[in-house]
Amino acid sequence: MKFLFLNGPNLNLLGQREPGVYGRLTLSEIEGMVREKAGRLGVTIDFRQSNSEADLIDWIQQSPGLADVIILNAAAYTHTSVALRDAISGTGVPTIEIHLSNIHAREEFRHKSLIAPVCRGQIAGFGAQSYLLALDAAISVKAS
Amino acid sequence: MKFLFLNGPNLNLLGQREPGVYGRLTLSEIEGMVREKAGRLGVTIDFRQSNSEADLIDWIQQSPGLADVIILNAAAYTHTSVALRDAISGTGVPTIEIHLSNIHAREEFRHKSLIAPVCRGQIAGFGAQSYLLALDAAISVKAS
Amino acid sequence: MKFLFLNGPNLNLLGQREPGVYGRLTLSEIEGMVREKAGRLGVTIDFRQSNSEADLIDWIQQSPGLADVIILNAAAYTHTSVALRDAISGTGVPTIEIHLSNIHAREEFRHKSLIAPVCRGQIAGFGAQSYLLALDAAISVKAS
Amino acid sequence: MKFLFLNGPNLNLLGQREPGVYGRLTLSEIEGMVREKAGRLGVTIDFRQSNSEADLIDWIQQSPGLADVIILNAAAYTHTSVALRDAISGTGVPTIEIHLSNIHAREEFRHKSLIAPVCRGQIAGFGAQSYLLALDAAISVKAS
Amino acid sequence: MKFLFLNGPNLNLLGQREPGVYGRLTLSEIEGMVREKAGRLGVTIDFRQSNSEADLIDWIQQSPGLADVIILNAAAYTHTSVALRDAISGTGVPTIEIHLSNIHAREEFRHKSLIAPVCRGQIAGFGAQSYLLALDAAISVKAS
Amino acid sequence: MKFLFLNGPNLNLLGQREPGVYGRLTLSEIEGMVREKAGRLGVTIDFRQSNSEADLIDWIQQSPGLADVIILNAAAYTHTSVALRDAISGTGVPTIEIHLSNIHAREEFRHKSLIAPVCRGQIAGFGAQSYLLALDAAISVKAS
Amino acid sequence: MKFLFLNGPNLNLLGQREPGVYGRLTLSEIEGMVREKAGRLGVTIDFRQSNSEADLIDWIQQSPGLADVIILNAAAYTHTSVALRDAISGTGVPTIEIHLSNIHAREEFRHKSLIAPVCRGQIAGFGAQSYLLALDAAISVKAS
Amino acid sequence: MKFLFLNGPNLNLLGQREPGVYGRLTLSEIEGMVREKAGRLGVTIDFRQSNSEADLIDWIQQSPGLADVIILNAAAYTHTSVALRDAISGTGVPTIEIHLSNIHAREEFRHKSLIAPVCRGQIAGFGAQSYLLALDAAISVKAS
Amino acid sequence: MKFLFLNGPNLNLLGQREPGVYGRLTLSEIEGMVREKAGRLGVTIDFRQSNSEADLIDWIQQSPGLADVIILNAAAYTHTSVALRDAISGTGVPTIEIHLSNIHAREEFRHKSLIAPVCRGQIAGFGAQSYLLALDAAISVKAS
Amino acid sequence: MKFLFLNGPNLNLLGQREPGVYGRLTLSEIEGMVREKAGRLGVTIDFRQSNSEADLIDWIQQSPGLADVIILNAAAYTHTSVALRDAISGTGVPTIEIHLSNIHAREEFRHKSLIAPVCRGQIAGFGAQSYLLALDAAISVKAS
Amino acid sequence: MKFLFLNGPNLNLLGQREPGVYGRLTLSEIEGMVREKAGRLGVTIDFRQSNSEADLIDWIQQSPGLADVIILNAAAYTHTSVALRDAISGTGVPTIEIHLSNIHAREEFRHKSLIAPVCRGQIAGFGAQSYLLALDAAISVKAS
Amino acid sequence: MKFLFLNGPNLNLLGQREPGVYGRLTLSEIEGMVREKAGRLGVTIDFRQSNSEADLIDWIQQSPGLADVIILNAAAYTHTSVALRDAISGTGVPTIEIHLSNIHAREEFRHKSLIAPVCRGQIAGFGAQSYLLALDAAISVKAS
Repeated sequence: MKFLFLNGPNLNLLGQREPGVYGRLTLSEIEGMVREKAGRLGVTIDFRQSNSEADLIDWIQQSPGLADVIILNAAAYTHTSVALRDAISGTGVPTIEIHLSNIHAREEFRHKSLIAPVCRGQIAGFGAQSYLLALDAAISVKAS
Repeated sequence: MKFLFLNGPNLNLLGQREPGVYGRLTLSEIEGMVREKAGRLGVTIDFRQSNSEADLIDWIQQSPGLADVIILNAAAYTHTSVALRDAISGTGVPTIEIHLSNIHAREEFRHKSLIAPVCRGQIAGFGAQSYLLALDAAISVKAS
Repeated sequence: MKFLFLNGPNLNLLGQREPGVYGRLTLSEIEGMVREKAGRLGVTIDFRQSNSEADLIDWIQQSPGLADVIILNAAAYTHTSVALRDAISGTGVPTIEIHLSNIHAREEFRHKSLIAPVCRGQIAGFGAQSYLLALDAAISVKAS
Repeated sequence: MKFLFLNGPNLNLLGQREPGVYGRLTLSEIEGMVREKAGRLGVTIDFRQSNSEADLIDWIQQSPGLADVIILNAAAYTHTSVALRDAISGTGVPTIEIHLSNIHAREEFRHKSLIAPVCRGQIAGFGAQSYLLALDAAISVKAS
Repeated sequence: MKFLFLNGPNLNLLGQREPGVYGRLTLSEIEGMVREKAGRLGVTIDFRQSNSEADLIDWIQQSPGLADVIILNAAAYTHTSVALRDAISGTGVPTIEIHLSNIHAREEFRHKSLIAPVCRGQIAGFGAQSYLLALDAAISVKAS
Repeated sequence: MKFLFLNGPNLNLLGQREPGVYGRLTLSEIEGMVREKAGRLGVTIDFRQSNSEADLIDWIQQSPGLADVIILNAAAYTHTSVALRDAISGTGVPTIEIHLSNIHAREEFRHKSLIAPVCRGQIAGFGAQSYLLALDAAISVKAS
Repeated sequence: MKFLFLNGPNLNLLGQREPGVYGRLTLSEIEGMVREKAGRLGVTIDFRQSNSEADLIDWIQQSPGLADVIILNAAAYTHTSVALRDAISGTGVPTIEIHLSNIHAREEFRHKSLIAPVCRGQIAGFGAQSYLLALDAAISVKAS
Repeated sequence: MKFLFLNGPNLNLLGQREPGVYGRLTLSEIEGMVREKAGRLGVTIDFRQSNSEADLIDWIQQSPGLADVIILNAAAYTHTSVALRDAISGTGVPTIEIHLSNIHAREEFRHKSLIAPVCRGQIAGFGAQSYLLALDAAISVKAS
Repeated sequence: MKFLFLNGPNLNLLGQREPGVYGRLTLSEIEGMVREKAGRLGVTIDFRQSNSEADLIDWIQQSPGLADVIILNAAAYTHTSVALRDAISGTGVPTIEIHLSNIHAREEFRHKSLIAPVCRGQIAGFGAQSYLLALDAAISVKAS
Repeated sequence: MKFLFLNGPNLNLLGQREPGVYGRLTLSEIEGMVREKAGRLGVTIDFRQSNSEADLIDWIQQSPGLADVIILNAAAYTHTSVALRDAISGTGVPTIEIHLSNIHAREEFRHKSLIAPVCRGQIAGFGAQSYLLALDAAISVKAS
Repeated sequence: MKFLFLNGPNLNLLGQREPGVYGRLTLSEIEGMVREKAGRLGVTIDFRQSNSEADLIDWIQQSPGLADVIILNAAAYTHTSVALRDAISGTGVPTIEIHLSNIHAREEFRHKSLIAPVCRGQIAGFGAQSYLLALDAAISVKAS
Repeated sequence: MKFLFLNGPNLNLLGQREPGVYGRLTLSEIEGMVREKAGRLGVTIDFRQSNSEADLIDWIQQSPGLADVIILNAAAYTHTSVALRDAISGTGVPTIEIHLSNIHAREEFRHKSLIAPVCRGQIAGFGAQSYLLALDAAISVKAS
């Protein structure tokens, strides 16, 4: 089983970026936790980050055959990118939407996810734990 | 560790209620899966369902001391009950919001959760698996 | 043929409650008229009222096998209860929505029915006659 | 007793027009059913259809003295015609609004009826049966 | 003179529930203050709380003859319950709306009261004092 | 000078239609008053009414060369007809919008005039006097 | 007969203020035209302007006994002043709303008049002629 | 192949009506261009215009068997006519929506087309050329 | 203890202004009632009215040191004045918002109070009694 | 004559991406059809695709002198990119907006085109044929 | 060069009014800073404050000939005064809008400036520095 | 002191792009003016432009340590980019928002700035002068 973790804009700032909202772990530390758990579960993962909407679209488009499930933290693009949405539905690889913070408890404009309608499910608000939960969720999505 | 699973209106219909949306497992079968995993994790759980908004409020109010974390599938009341929201914030027990279906991919009126702003996080769209993921999430919430 | 008439909050006040809007007949007198006509038509009816949203949900859930058609005057819950809507769609018994007054001619917030999208049809504005018309409508729904 | 049945735009297409939504009966067959039942009830009916908003207004204006009750399926004009509304309120003949389909369960723009506030009541969603129910409703409106 | 104080959902949590918003007095202590002042004024009071919308509706319906004025802190139901509104207008006992906090200074969804249009007046924002002021207001409403 | 008075739907009901709103004069009596004043002022008038949107459009289209100013009481079409608006702007004859009632003091949907942006001015709320004032206004528009 | 013409903010700029919108006549020249016509009609007029909302309110409050009709060009306050509206309805002197420009053909925020619902009628878009038409309208309002 | 070109209200004014927006060609000249190209392509065309919504509905209803594709410039009715929409979907003849001007670049109320959801496609903004392009589009629609 | 009662626009009309809405007492009679009760309570009061927004702002700004609590009936300015709001928050003297009528039961635009978010509480709907209740409320605010 | 065809995000997925919506042709096959027709017409074309908003902006900026007309299928960016809009209006090369699907018949958020107001016209809903029609349209735009 | 600095309601409270939002300098100290810099630049300034909307309008109207540029901190009136807007556009003296705080980062109702569309530019969020920057901006506006 | 000037999409078109809106200076000429003034003030500046949202995010992320203040003309991304907003708040370098044109006086969609809530202040409408003013503003922000 191969899962593709995609991280959107500003997630490379984790650890320094508003730790009260996003926690104190760096993205690299989160990747480490994900890899550790994936190793235990026998799952291969690919873990990427980009500030570029186009990179994320390209990676989603390249995923068929390379990944069984995409786990996507689209960050700010969650709320503004129809193009990401179309990439997900056009590519057809099952996708899980994750967020470090509980977006539904923040500013009004973060309550709306443009990608949710084409994703299998959403996990939000558990910090780094959102990534680990998504790993389990992906296994169950793959199995379904 | 003790977790309280609360299930809102019509979840007692599971298995027969619109299986295309909610899956084919009964609530009792889901409870069984939760209890099995909880047993493995050494967690005590309480698992209840009611069609009554007042019952849910009462149970949330009684939870301090009895539960470390509430895992709440408020079903339809998610979108209409300010009273549940006030019960959660008034009681202060950390609460995780779960949904069987991906509410953000359904009718517009299901996109808005009145309880989200007072919950720690949200897991939606993974069917019975949402309950099992919440068990892990609750452990991490308790630990934080 | 068995029909279940369910009456929502404050309908027990009929006759005394704003007769200019709702008419001068009591709910019991309406029940009498319904029973009289049902008798003539050879239809068995069950006729209930509750101020409790949960009671109404419970009764709808219990209806399969006991009723061929539900005739529902949800009163105020028409405009606020997603839970009733989910009970109707989850249970699957054909349901007819009725109102004593013409809700579309009253305050703006009464124009919107949350249950309409899961009901077969709506009869509104004919006072007690709405109940009698629904009896005919139910027979035709059952026959279809 | 004389009742005037008025049918708005595209109802002459019935039977062929989207039978999944509107049923398989032609307007002429519905008229036949109405005439048959009216005959049994000793009611004289007039039954007309036009695609023209002006025709419908003219007919409503001509109704005093000729009809005790108007039964109006305004079809698409339900949602766009203030002029029909003014004709009804200006003429003063009691009017019953009917629809073949349950307009409240369809596209958002069909939920709003501009004529409802000046009609006695509304019957929607029962197909041809809506017309037959309206006949009973009209008798009760006339009697009130 | 007899006044009925009705308290809605979560008010039984007072004292512990978000004291920064609602104050440090328990509902029982507030009841004590109300009874003390009522005693001085020679007024009989009944003081109840429920988390159940149906209980509140029932109590309002039972009030004619038992209470001259209802003093209602509907709490969360203020913003969501059309059924309470209909109970008040259907029963006809003059009702005063009270709130511990200044609802107009809080979240947007608390600014709108569904029951206000059928109440005589509103007192909000004075903590326990809102109850004592309402006692005076009720005497003046009774006298008018 | 030649002025064209155009009257929209239901204005032929004047005198009998809701006299509390529209006054007790018939359209024919208003025409008489207009003709009498026009005679005194040496103005030729043409005075027409139709319930048909298309008739009104046709008459506006035919007006160049036949009328110096159009005085238009579009009645209900004021609020729904983009086609009338386009006829006025497409034809180019200066047009004055009149109303018997003060549309801005009535239902919300009557506050918006779709034709106002292509008319010279608006006179509303003076009953039959609105027509006589428009005669003066038209002379000044013609002179400008 | 005595009429009170009240002019709101910035109308003292007339003649120099955006002549393309408001015309080239000064307010004083308009006053002269009004006085000339009033003289011919045997009507006494009082003609005032202020940039102060409070002045306009005071003048309206002082008008009973001094004026039979108020003719009010509230200018910018038309769209923002609830206080002017309350002064008109509280004082009870019949009031005619006038505007030099056709406010319904300008920016969206000028389409809404807060005072219209308490005025008898509205004349807008005829420049200085709006004032002269209002004189005739006021005579007919007084006579009614 | 037979195509039916239908033209809505005010299109008979073309050439004189706001040439800056709609161009300088008359509808008759456009018809000539269409006929010339249709002749070259071996397509029979019918080309009609009416200011009447009912005429357009009638023509659409009569089209099955007479036309393979309808090319509809509904003009102002594009934005206000649910009846035209229902005629198109009820009749079932494939329909192409055209506009001379780019409606999406004009007033806000022209951006919304009520008929678009039941048409195959839309061509807007190319003046008379929109008609010629639609001829090609219709051939491809017919072929599909 | 010194309290400053400030009264906004048109409150000088009380007694004559729409007595059905505002009651039959003049502002001077209300002042008398307030002074009488204040005397009994040993409180010094200052009682003022102005139609000018600027006067009200000035008085609020001058209140520190002169008044312990402001009791403000801002009347129409309640709904339109951000400047009053800023004066209250900028000056810092605790302020109680009062209204004679129940603003939440009137026109939609009166439901929104711009000053509420910076006031301690609101008393609305008890006529002159609102002033007397505010006196008690102010004592409790001062004591808190 | 040189035309620049620009294709936005996910159009490289054509053929595999939701063929029910977008058709079964690949972008490369569409390019082939365009080149074939362009060859016949003696037009030079440049045909590009990118998932990057910035690429599209760069290409538009580089077009003056290189292209007479831009034919732009902005795909998802149609609904979200003000930057593309500004590139078009800032560069000044006439631009034609095209879409494979009829965007006005899909989700609400696809009805709004941010680029339409700065484009000459729009062709939507004809699949690959939209591209071929645009070629004709571009020739006529160039000629105008 | 002569510049007129106008300050709106509550700015006389500066230094004491919510220093966290508006800073600790008094308006008089800001005036001093402005005068000092103006002196260095050889610019004459006039610096005024009023809580009265009418005063501000009067001062703007008097400015032609007396001031080359107006620098306006309209404070709360920024968001509510159409009259100020009309004064600026009617008078024609170039006006610069300034704010101490960043109004776009505060409550939603402060994001909208009614006067912005008639001002040259806006400087907001730099505290007293906003005034000094405006001095430079005014010189460049004057020079343009 | 080091300041980073970042310029968003299409600003490389300056001078040729809609000079009526944006002025006739090229971005390079503006950079020259900024460098000249910065030199006089002893400030080091870095001045960049990109059409890519990702480039702008990257540059903001790299700014800590390299720049004391960011001066950001985000152009079209001002209104659509949550990602830029998150980059600013996540990075923590004080940022000043500038615009050549007065965005508040243009199309409605340009009135809303998504980045304003995380910027210190905004300068808009002064053309190239906005950049020079921002230099002064940045010095004062740095000093504060």
